[in-house]
Amino acid sequence: MHLHLRDGGMLETVGPLSAETFAGAVIMPNLVPPVDELQKCLAYRERIQAACKSEAFEPFMTLFFRQYSRSELEAAKSHIIGIKLYPDGITTNSEGGVRKIADAEDTIALMEETGIPLLVHGETGDFVMDREERFLEVYDHLARKFPKLRIVMEHITTQGAVKLLDQHANLFATVTLHHLIITLDDVAGGFLRPHLFCKPIAKRPEDREALLQAALSAHPKLSFGSDSAPHPQSKKECCGCAAGVFTAPIALQMLAELFDKHDRLPNLQAFVSDNAVKNYSVRPPAKKVLLTKQPSEVPEAYGDVVPMCAGEQIGWSVEKITD
Amino acid sequence: MHLHLRDGGMLETVGPLSAETFAGAVIMPNLVPPVDELQKCLAYRERIQAACKSEAFEPFMTLFFRQYSRSELEAAKSHIIGIKLYPDGITTNSEGGVRKIADAEDTIALMEETGIPLLVHGETGDFVMDREERFLEVYDHLARKFPKLRIVMEHITTQGAVKLLDQHANLFATVTLHHLIITLDDVAGGFLRPHLFCKPIAKRPEDREALLQAALSAHPKLSFGSDSAPHPQSKKECCGCAAGVFTAPIALQMLAELFDKHDRLPNLQAFVSDNAVKNYSVRPPAKKVLLTKQPSEVPEAYGDVVPMCAGEQIGWSVEKITD
Repeated sequence: MHLHLRDGGMLETVGPLSAETFAGAVIMPNLVPPVDELQKCLAYRERIQAACKSEAFEPFMTLFFRQYSRSELEAAKSHIIGIKLYPDGITTNSEGGVRKIADAEDTIALMEETGIPLLVHGETGDFVMDREERFLEVYDHLARKFPKLRIVMEHITTQGAVKLLDQHANLFATVTLHHLIITLDDVAGGFLRPHLFCKPIAKRPEDREALLQAALSAHPKLSFGSDSAPHPQSKKECCGCAAGVFTAPIALQMLAELFDKHDRLPNLQAFVSDNAVKNYSVRPPAKKVLLTKQPSEVPEAYGDVVPMCAGEQIGWSVEKITD
Repeated sequence: MHLHLRDGGMLETVGPLSAETFAGAVIMPNLVPPVDELQKCLAYRERIQAACKSEAFEPFMTLFFRQYSRSELEAAKSHIIGIKLYPDGITTNSEGGVRKIADAEDTIALMEETGIPLLVHGETGDFVMDREERFLEVYDHLARKFPKLRIVMEHITTQGAVKLLDQHANLFATVTLHHLIITLDDVAGGFLRPHLFCKPIAKRPEDREALLQAALSAHPKLSFGSDSAPHPQSKKECCGCAAGVFTAPIALQMLAELFDKHDRLPNLQAFVSDNAVKNYSVRPPAKKVLLTKQPSEVPEAYGDVVPMCAGEQIGWSVEKITD
C-alpha cells in the first residue's frame, strides 16, 4: 500500500521492482501534472501495468484531491480505491493541494455519500517535528464530522497518531518500513544521510517505539504502506536534496527480519496484507512469497535510484514467489 | 571566538578570510591528531599566523582535553586561553575525547587551581534533539563542584542553556550566527540542506528565540562564537555529509543585518567583541571594522568551501577596516 511509482523512465525502473514481491499497491497520484481526472488515472494505470509486466500485481489507483462533482466521483468510483489529499506544498509535487480543509469539505461530504475513502498526507506547515502532531486535530475533526467516511492516515510517524487510531471507528493508518526502524538520529544524528530523508520526517525514539509496537501486534486498523519513493541519485545527493526513501524491493525481507527479531513473525501476514485488504477494501490477485532466513545483500543502486540500506546485508531473503 | 581553521590547504583558504574582519578568535584544537601538547599548539599557532598574514589577528589557542599533569598545565598556561573538552565521538574529529566526566575531574580540578578556563562541546550521545538539554546537568555539576573554574558552554543551541547561564557565576557561553537564524526546519523542513547541517544541530523555534533575545540584549555572559567550520564541498554534498557551517567571511555583515532588523545595533559591539574580551580574558589587537547598510553578495564558494547563504544577497557590507 502507499507506493510512488512516478512515470516515464523512473516507472520503468521501479515498477517491476514493486510488482515482484507485492500483489498490489495503492498508487500515489502526485505526478506533474497531478492525476486528477478519471481519464488521466486510467491512462496512468495502463502505463503502470505495461511497466510492471505482471498479471499478479494490481495497481490500486487514487485521484489527487481537488473539488470533484458528484458525477465525477460516481464515474470514478469503480476505478479508484480512494482520493489522496495533500496539503498544498507539503511534500514532493503537492503544489495545488488543499490550502484550507474547510474548503475541501464539500467534496469530502460527497466522498462520504458515494463511499470513496479519503487518504491523507497529514502534515501542517508548522515546525518540522510538529507537523503531524498538529494535523491530528484535522483528522479528529474529519472523523467526527464524516462518520461514514473511511479515512486513512497515510504513513503515520508519531505516538499521537497511533493513539488517535483507537478513538474513531472510521480512522485507519499505514506506516512505512523506515519509520519502524529509524528516528531523526539516523537522518541527522551522525553524518547527514539524504537517503533516509523523507516526509514526514522520522521522529523521536518514543514515536518509533509506538509505531513499532502497533505494527508488531498487527493492530487491525494499521497496515504496511511502504511509501517507497524513488528519486534519481542526483536529486538525493546534492545541495538541496529531495524527500523520499526507496524501499520497494527490500521491504518484505526487511520486515521479515524486523518481525523475526521481535519474535512476532506470525503477525507479518496481517500487517503486510490482511489488514490492508480489509482497511482499503481491496482484492489483490493471489500471490505467495516464501521468505527465508538467509542473508541477502542490498544492491548499491537500482538504475540511478539508491535504496535504503544500499550495500548492506539483511538477514532475510525471498526464496520463491508463486502466483 | 570559537573558530575552526583546520590545517594545510584548508587553513590557507579560510585563515585569511577570518583574519580580515576579526581581531582574534579562539582556535579549536580538533585536528587529526588533536592539538594536545604545548609544542603542537605552538607549532599550530605559527602555521595559523603564517596563513593569516595579518598582524591584526590574534589566534587564541586552546588544547584538546585529555588528562594533563600540573606541570603540563603550568607550562601551557601563558600560551592558551583554555582547554576544550569534547565528549568522545560527538562531533568532527572528537574521537579520543572524554567518555566519562568523572574521569576528567582530576584534570579539571587542576585547571581550576591553575586558572585555565574549560571550554566545552556540551552534548551527550542521546537523541539528536535532546543532546544539549541532557548535557546541562553536567554543566550544572561542574559549575557547582569547581566554583572558581571559568566554564564556557560553547555554541549553545537551546532555551535551557540560556536559562542555565544565569544560575552560576562561573558559567559563560558562546552562540553562533547560524543558531540565531535557523531551526531544524531550515536544515530538513523543505529540501535537505547540507550546508546548514552542523553539530549541535539547529533546534526548535523557541530555542532560537531564546538565543536571539540573549544575543540582541548583549547578555553579558554570552558572546559571539561563529563556530565557522569549513569542509570541502565534496564532504558536504554527498551520501553522508559532514557537520559544520562556514560563516567566517560573512558573519559580521550578517550579524549587523540581524541586529539592525531588530533595532539593536548598539548592542552588536558588546556581543561580538566586548563580552568575549571579558569572558575569555583576552586582549585582541586593535581593529576597527566599519559596517555599512549596503547590500553585498555572498560568493557561491571560497575555494572549495561553500558558505552559508551562498549566492544570496545580504543587506550589510564591510566598508573599511583599520588596524
